[in-house]
Amino acid sequence: MENYQKIINSIYSNLKNVTDTGKVADYIPELGNISPDNFGVNITTIDKKSFGVGDFNKKFSIQSISKILTLTLAYQLEGETLWKRVDVEPSGNPFNSLLQLEADLGIPRNPFINAGAIVVCDVLISHLQNPKDEFLAFCREISNNNELKYNEKVAQSEKKTGYRNIAMCNFIKSFGNIKNDIEDVLDFYFYTCSLEMTCQELSQIFLFLANDDFITQRGKRVLTMSQAKRINAILLTCGFYDESGEFAFRVGLPGKSGVGGGIVAIHPDEFCITVWSPKLNKKGNSYKGMLFLEQFTTATASSIF
Amino acid sequence: MENYQKIINSIYSNLKNVTDTGKVADYIPELGNISPDNFGVNITTIDKKSFGVGDFNKKFSIQSISKILTLTLAYQLEGETLWKRVDVEPSGNPFNSLLQLEADLGIPRNPFINAGAIVVCDVLISHLQNPKDEFLAFCREISNNNELKYNEKVAQSEKKTGYRNIAMCNFIKSFGNIKNDIEDVLDFYFYTCSLEMTCQELSQIFLFLANDDFITQRGKRVLTMSQAKRINAILLTCGFYDESGEFAFRVGLPGKSGVGGGIVAIHPDEFCITVWSPKLNKKGNSYKGMLFLEQFTTATASSIF
Amino acid sequence: MENYQKIINSIYSNLKNVTDTGKVADYIPELGNISPDNFGVNITTIDKKSFGVGDFNKKFSIQSISKILTLTLAYQLEGETLWKRVDVEPSGNPFNSLLQLEADLGIPRNPFINAGAIVVCDVLISHLQNPKDEFLAFCREISNNNELKYNEKVAQSEKKTGYRNIAMCNFIKSFGNIKNDIEDVLDFYFYTCSLEMTCQELSQIFLFLANDDFITQRGKRVLTMSQAKRINAILLTCGFYDESGEFAFRVGLPGKSGVGGGIVAIHPDEFCITVWSPKLNKKGNSYKGMLFLEQFTTATASSIF
Amino acid sequence: MENYQKIINSIYSNLKNVTDTGKVADYIPELGNISPDNFGVNITTIDKKSFGVGDFNKKFSIQSISKILTLTLAYQLEGETLWKRVDVEPSGNPFNSLLQLEADLGIPRNPFINAGAIVVCDVLISHLQNPKDEFLAFCREISNNNELKYNEKVAQSEKKTGYRNIAMCNFIKSFGNIKNDIEDVLDFYFYTCSLEMTCQELSQIFLFLANDDFITQRGKRVLTMSQAKRINAILLTCGFYDESGEFAFRVGLPGKSGVGGGIVAIHPDEFCITVWSPKLNKKGNSYKGMLFLEQFTTATASSIF
Repeated sequence: MENYQKIINSIYSNLKNVTDTGKVADYIPELGNISPDNFGVNITTIDKKSFGVGDFNKKFSIQSISKILTLTLAYQLEGETLWKRVDVEPSGNPFNSLLQLEADLGIPRNPFINAGAIVVCDVLISHLQNPKDEFLAFCREISNNNELKYNEKVAQSEKKTGYRNIAMCNFIKSFGNIKNDIEDVLDFYFYTCSLEMTCQELSQIFLFLANDDFITQRGKRVLTMSQAKRINAILLTCGFYDESGEFAFRVGLPGKSGVGGGIVAIHPDEFCITVWSPKLNKKGNSYKGMLFLEQFTTATASSIF
Repeated sequence: MENYQKIINSIYSNLKNVTDTGKVADYIPELGNISPDNFGVNITTIDKKSFGVGDFNKKFSIQSISKILTLTLAYQLEGETLWKRVDVEPSGNPFNSLLQLEADLGIPRNPFINAGAIVVCDVLISHLQNPKDEFLAFCREISNNNELKYNEKVAQSEKKTGYRNIAMCNFIKSFGNIKNDIEDVLDFYFYTCSLEMTCQELSQIFLFLANDDFITQRGKRVLTMSQAKRINAILLTCGFYDESGEFAFRVGLPGKSGVGGGIVAIHPDEFCITVWSPKLNKKGNSYKGMLFLEQFTTATASSIF
Repeated sequence: MENYQKIINSIYSNLKNVTDTGKVADYIPELGNISPDNFGVNITTIDKKSFGVGDFNKKFSIQSISKILTLTLAYQLEGETLWKRVDVEPSGNPFNSLLQLEADLGIPRNPFINAGAIVVCDVLISHLQNPKDEFLAFCREISNNNELKYNEKVAQSEKKTGYRNIAMCNFIKSFGNIKNDIEDVLDFYFYTCSLEMTCQELSQIFLFLANDDFITQRGKRVLTMSQAKRINAILLTCGFYDESGEFAFRVGLPGKSGVGGGIVAIHPDEFCITVWSPKLNKKGNSYKGMLFLEQFTTATASSIF
Repeated sequence: MENYQKIINSIYSNLKNVTDTGKVADYIPELGNISPDNFGVNITTIDKKSFGVGDFNKKFSIQSISKILTLTLAYQLEGETLWKRVDVEPSGNPFNSLLQLEADLGIPRNPFINAGAIVVCDVLISHLQNPKDEFLAFCREISNNNELKYNEKVAQSEKKTGYRNIAMCNFIKSFGNIKNDIEDVLDFYFYTCSLEMTCQELSQIFLFLANDDFITQRGKRVLTMSQAKRINAILLTCGFYDESGEFAFRVGLPGKSGVGGGIVAIHPDEFCITVWSPKLNKKGNSYKGMLFLEQFTTATASSIF
C-alpha cells in the first residue's frame, strides 16, 4: 500500500516538468482563470486508505465527471427503463455532435456525452421535487461529505454561452425525448457540471463503483452490484468521448474525464484514482492525466484486462 | 470447476428451446447452408481444463473471429507502429460503413471492423512470404492443433460476392493505406475468414489472451503481457461492431463475434469461453450467443467490472 | 393571353379530382385546420394581366415562400456581403437537417432552407428598427397591396412547437453566425412565415423577379437586374429542398414552395404563377402544385431551358 | 454577332494575364503534362456561326464533360426508365463522395457525378454490342465530326490509379445497381472520359441542347425537345459538383466542367460556349473558365434568368 504512495510520487516527479502541449478549456470563461500548472493525484482504496501528491486537496470544477453522478441517481430511481431514453454505445464522434442524434431520432448514444447527460437530467427532474437540492444531498450522502457545493459563477457562466447545449436540448425535445421544460433541464444540467471537488473527494465519492459491498453512512447501497458493474462498463466504452478506445488501450480502466482537467478511474475491487491537470489534449481530455494513468497502470500492472 | 459444467448445462437447457428471433447470415451462400439449430458451448480454463455442451465439437466458419488472429500476428511482427495504420476507437457505425473511412482519410477506426482487418492483412502480406501458409502455421502453433484448415469453398464464395469489401479495399488504397496488390490482400483476407474451428478449438486458441504466462509448445510467448491486455481492451470496446457497448454492458467481458454465429469471450486470468448458434440479431451478432453469455457472467459473477 | 385562362382551366379540371396521395402539414396546429380540398391557381403577366381559377382568391399561410421576401429585403439592404453569412448551394439534405450546418461551421447552405432564412432574419434585424413593421411595409410596397397581414395565431403556434428551429438558431449562434438575440430572431422569423396571401396576391408580389424593369408605385427598383436574376438562380437550384432538381427537371422554372401548400414559379420576362393545394408529398412540396406546374410548362412550352 | 467576337476578345485580354490561383489536376499523370497557360474560348450559335479566341483549336481531354454525351445516348436508348437508376438531385457533397451513395442505397444523386456517370455507362453497356465503338460513332454523328478520338494513354492512365472509381463501382454493385461486369463498366467509363476535343468541337457537339430543332446530318433528332430541356435542367442544378449553385448564381447558364480545365455552357435558343484553361479552383472547376463566363453573361445579359 505504501507502495502506492511511492509510485504516484515517482510518476508525479517524472511528469511535473514534462512539456504539456495541451490547452486549458476557455469556452467557459470561469474555467479559463484556472492556473494551468495545477497538478494533483489521489488514490483511495476500497478500505479507505488515501494517498495523495501535488494539488490533491485543491477544489476544481469536475464538469463532465458529474455525469457519472447524475447517471447513478437516475439509474437508482428509474431502473432499467432508463435505457429506453439513452443508449450505451460509444459515439464515434466528437462530444458535441448533433449528427448521431439526428440519425438515432433523439436517443443519445450514451449517458456520458452531453446529449445523454441532458436526457439523464430530464429523467431526474421527473423524479425529484427540488432537483438541485436533492442531487446535492445525494452526492453528499454517498461521499459522506457535507462540504460539496455547486459553483454558482461557473453554472451562470455556462448558461450564458451554452448555445450548443441549448441547441441539443431543443433538438432532442423535437424528437420527444425531453419531457420537462427546456430551461429547467439546462439550468439543472449546468449546476451539476459546476460541482467542485478535490482529487481526494473525487476518489472517495466513486468508491461505490470500486467496492461491491459499498454502503453509505446511513447503511444504504447506492446501486446493486450488477448495476455498478454496468456503469463501469459504460465508463470503459464511452467515458472519454472519441478517445475512449485509446484510454482503454493505454490505461485499461473504466474512467471519466471533465473539461476542468480532472480524470477519475476505477479499479474494481481495488481503488479509485483521480488525476487533475487543466491542460487538455485535442480530444478534450487532460494531457498529463492520460499520461499519468498510463504510467500508473503499467507500473502497478493494474489494467482490468 | 465442475461448477462450470453444471452452469453451462443449466443455461444451455434453458436456452435450447427459446424462440430465436435471429436470422442465419446468407450473404455468403455457403453460410446459408448451415442448420440454424446448431448450438454449442465450450470453456477452457487457463490451466487447460475443458467443459463443453451441445455441438461444441462441430466445425463452423469462424469468420470475423479470425480478425483477432490476424491482428495478433501483425502486432507480433510489426509492433506499435501498427497503430499508425489502424486506430483503436469504436466505430459507432454499422460494420461495413464507408462513412468513417472517408472522414478519417483511409485509417480504419479499429482492427475488428472489415476495413481494419483488411489493412491488417495488408500489413501481414508485407511481412510474410507465403501469407496463407504462414498464417495457418501460426494458428496451428498457438493452438497446438495441426487440424486447423481453411474452407476453400467459403473463401471462394466470399470472393465472388464481396463487392463491398472490394470497394472498401480500393477506397483505402486511394488514401494510400493499402501497400500491396488489392487482389492479393482480399484473397488472403477471405481465406483468413474461412478458417473452421469447433467451440473447443476456439476456446483453446485464445488462451494466450487469458493467461499472462502463456507459452506455445515450442516455448515461445505470443505477445508481451501488455500487448495481450491491449488486444483485450480493443475487443471490449470494438469487438461487436455497433453493439460493442451493449455487450460490455450486458456481459462485461472482452469478446468477438463472427457472422458464422460464433462468439468468443475472454476472462483474463480465468478462462476463454465460446458459444456457437448461427442465428444473428439485427446487429449481426449471434442472438443466443449474447443471451448465453449474459446469463453465464451473471451466474458466475465473472464480469471484469 | 386568353390562352392562359383556357390552359389553366383545362389543367385545373383534369387535376381537380385526381387522387392526391399527399398529406396536409399538421406540425403547426393552425395549418392542420385548413381544408385539403382547397385548390387555386393564378397567373400574373409582367404587363399585369391576371388569370385565375378555383380558390385563387382565398388567403392561405405562405410559410416558406416568405423566404424569398426576407432574402430580397436583406439583399437590398446588405448587398453582396450577405453571401458571407449564407451560401448559394443546394443542400442535398432534408430541409431541417443539422448535418450540413455542422460540417459548414454554421454557414447555411442557402437562404431557402430554414437555417438560411433564420440567418437572413438576423441580418434584417441588424438593419431595421422595427423589423416586423418595416418588413410588412416592404411587402405592401412591392405588391402595392395594403391588405397584407401576419396571422398572429399561426406565428404563436409555431413559436410553441418550433423546437427544431430553436435548436438550429442556437446551433448557428454557437458558430457566431447569429448576431442578435435568439428570441428576437425567431420571433421575427415566425412572423414572416405567418404572412397570409391569396394566389393572386402572391403572383403580383413576385413580379419584380419576372420583370427586369419593375418599379414600385413610388417609382423605386426593388433590386438591380443582376440581383433579381441571381435570386431566380438560387430559386431554381434550391427552392424545393431536396426536390429542387426534380422541380427543375419536370417544370423548368425558378420557384419556391411552402408547407401551407403554395408554390410560386417565375418565368423571366413573362409571368409569375401561383398554385395552392394543401396536401404535400413526402418531400414537403404540394403534390398537386408540382403536377399542375409540370403540365402547365409542357402545355405552354415555357421552361427556361 | 460580330459583337460576340469583340466581347470574347475583350474579356480574353482582360483575363489572359490575371493571376490564376488554381492548380492543374495531376491525379491522372497524363493530365499533369498539359501546359497551364493554355487558354481558349469558342462560341457556336444555333445557326452555326463560330467565334473563337486563343487556343480554341487545340485538343484537350474533355473528361467529365463526356458525362453529358453518355447521358444523352443512354436517355435516347433507355427513355424515362433511366431515372430509376440515377436521380436528378444536386449532391451537396464533393464529387467523389461515397456518403450519399450509402444513404441512397446505391442510387447516385445525379448523372454528372462520377457515381452517376458510371451507372449511365453500365446502362449503355446493356444496350450496345461494342460500347466504345458505338459511343464514338454516336459522338461523331451528332457533331458531324469524324476526327473525334479517344486518347488511349489517358484512358490507361486513369485505369491504373482509379482506385476510388473502382471502389465506387463495386460499392454500387453491392446494392445491385450495376448489372454488367465491373471491369467492363470501368474500362468503358475511362475511355469516354479520355475523349479529346477542341473548344470549337465542343461548342459544336452540344448544339443539340441549344437548338430545339437540331437534327444530325443524317436527318435524325438526338432527343425530343422535352428531353433536351431536361438535360439542361440537370446541367444547371448539378453540372459543377458542389459549386453548381455558385455557377448558376454567377453565370446563370446550364453547363458542365471537366478536370481537364474545360467548361461548356448552353444558352437555349442562342448558342453554346466553351472555355478551356487547365488550372482548377478548389472545387475542381476551371478558375479562369468560371471567371470568363461570369464576365461574358454579364456583358451580354445572357443569363437564362
